[in-house]
Amino acid sequence: MHTGAEAPDWQIEAWSNTNVPIELATLRGRVIVAAAFQMLCPGCVEHSIPQLKRVEALFDRRDVAVIGLHTVFEHHSGMGPMSLAAFLHEYRVAFPVGIDQAGENGDPIPKTMRRYAMQGTPTLLLIDRAGKLRLQHFGRLSDLQLGAEIMSLIAEPGQASAQEACNADACTVPPD
Amino acid sequence: MHTGAEAPDWQIEAWSNTNVPIELATLRGRVIVAAAFQMLCPGCVEHSIPQLKRVEALFDRRDVAVIGLHTVFEHHSGMGPMSLAAFLHEYRVAFPVGIDQAGENGDPIPKTMRRYAMQGTPTLLLIDRAGKLRLQHFGRLSDLQLGAEIMSLIAEPGQASAQEACNADACTVPPD
Amino acid sequence: MHTGAEAPDWQIEAWSNTNVPIELATLRGRVIVAAAFQMLCPGCVEHSIPQLKRVEALFDRRDVAVIGLHTVFEHHSGMGPMSLAAFLHEYRVAFPVGIDQAGENGDPIPKTMRRYAMQGTPTLLLIDRAGKLRLQHFGRLSDLQLGAEIMSLIAEPGQASAQEACNADACTVPPD
Amino acid sequence: MHTGAEAPDWQIEAWSNTNVPIELATLRGRVIVAAAFQMLCPGCVEHSIPQLKRVEALFDRRDVAVIGLHTVFEHHSGMGPMSLAAFLHEYRVAFPVGIDQAGENGDPIPKTMRRYAMQGTPTLLLIDRAGKLRLQHFGRLSDLQLGAEIMSLIAEPGQASAQEACNADACTVPPD
Repeated sequence: MHTGAEAPDWQIEAWSNTNVPIELATLRGRVIVAAAFQMLCPGCVEHSIPQLKRVEALFDRRDVAVIGLHTVFEHHSGMGPMSLAAFLHEYRVAFPVGIDQAGENGDPIPKTMRRYAMQGTPTLLLIDRAGKLRLQHFGRLSDLQLGAEIMSLIAEPGQASAQEACNADACTVPPD
Repeated sequence: MHTGAEAPDWQIEAWSNTNVPIELATLRGRVIVAAAFQMLCPGCVEHSIPQLKRVEALFDRRDVAVIGLHTVFEHHSGMGPMSLAAFLHEYRVAFPVGIDQAGENGDPIPKTMRRYAMQGTPTLLLIDRAGKLRLQHFGRLSDLQLGAEIMSLIAEPGQASAQEACNADACTVPPD
Repeated sequence: MHTGAEAPDWQIEAWSNTNVPIELATLRGRVIVAAAFQMLCPGCVEHSIPQLKRVEALFDRRDVAVIGLHTVFEHHSGMGPMSLAAFLHEYRVAFPVGIDQAGENGDPIPKTMRRYAMQGTPTLLLIDRAGKLRLQHFGRLSDLQLGAEIMSLIAEPGQASAQEACNADACTVPPD
Repeated sequence: MHTGAEAPDWQIEAWSNTNVPIELATLRGRVIVAAAFQMLCPGCVEHSIPQLKRVEALFDRRDVAVIGLHTVFEHHSGMGPMSLAAFLHEYRVAFPVGIDQAGENGDPIPKTMRRYAMQGTPTLLLIDRAGKLRLQHFGRLSDLQLGAEIMSLIAEPGQASAQEACNADACTVPPD
């Protein structure tokens, strides 16, 4: 997708690792690091998932929200909800993961993936505190660059602090 | 299982990457390197599957047969045949893989895994040219040690050569 | 050393990979990423040197200056200038490296290392655009964190841009 | 060098990690795994030295002798005996290392390296129990293959066992 524009809402069938659905607006005020992945995509398993875990461990959750998007566009019957649940358990994934809604009219590409015009998996999305898509990257991104990109968004001047709007469990939408 | 005894037959529900079921007796005359794995076991995906591929690439198929055994003992509904097929495709697994038969009377442990009294996955099995189980190892085994163990079995004196009994596609049971 | 204070000048015996000695003041306006290392320190060779190379490759040299400090505090006779020159050649180190001046009165700790009260090698130093020491870290620092720390300093508001003062080959001291 | 022939004696200036010079004949009866390396050759440091350590840790010293040969053919002044001593200490190298004798008449290639016609470093040598050179490999060799090659030599039929001739500290030449 074109970066700089407002990030379009994602369309999620079901969430794991969260009690409530997570909308983009809910995360306003925080930097969002999201990865679109497939549980049987080797590059996702080897690179993206561990990288997301490191992001989650390093940054303050008041600054950065880590989200997984399960965007299955092949082998649909092999990566259903039960398989994903087992995967998330075995790979110790603790951040919220949303299952992208199936495409319409037989489209093998799920809806959020289609909406963002992703080229494949893994695809990394960086969304700034104001909800704008700032980076969309297909393939691997080095930790050094990702750390720099995230901090660049955290440090942007003029953004309202999200600190007061969040506690250990949740963030509420800050008033406009 | 106790090593040194004859390796018990495996009990397979269905095979991938082979047109015919593979029985232990079919492989008599060759060293068998088999790994029991689960497609959502991180140690299996990260370590065992790549190691088996390296074994397959290094050794002559007239000397060594590489086999995967899908021994699911947890998250059964997440690792069914469709999921395994997608996994084998995505991870470019070309060696034969047999799905271990489900346990009886609600036993979560599948039959071959039970019969060999495996402690978990990954478990590596080395079976010699005469069909005896020579090593059963739960967890990781270094490439250096595995290379040495395999060659030790290949080099064993007194074993009939399997060379004539094999061609590029198959090995037939050498006459006693 | 205490971070937040002005970074003390380094005391260098000889430089490699630069035609002119590099003083801290020369780099004012840029973020400095410096690593104190020893050429026979395994952690330095395996971790720090490759990490510095990645920093050099990723960031714009108008924003970030990468510097190595050879702070030998043991095996002095084994890590002399000829050995260091061979090391830098073989390991393809292209960023400037300064040899820390030998300690006085038989002090095995060289002068810059002593001045910064470093605990050992590798030690990473981050110095901001105004010349203040902002981070001093003994041991390994993850790429994710280092990328974030560097960008945090690059993005600091109120710093004069160093852009005009630099060209492809050198940076001149910006006027106060 | 041509494999299959008797391994030529190495010509050593000085030894580390052994109280007595080690000649090939002294090791007769054991498989010899030797690596020619330079302390500032990145591939040697990253690959060969750790691999030799793994060989030393895995195999019984009554079967396998691990030897390093410091074959400096470039940057001679940077890799002298003091530098090597520091290197061996810092990298925790405990197996015997011999410094190859300097070439004659200004030859930059040292004598043993010349005698074996090595192409560079690292070069791995495998010598069988009877003293024959069986493998000479320039560059990296996988652990899987090295383990297999070593075991192939250990298992060779017809070799006199070296067991009685060795104790924890030394091996004596078995009688012909």
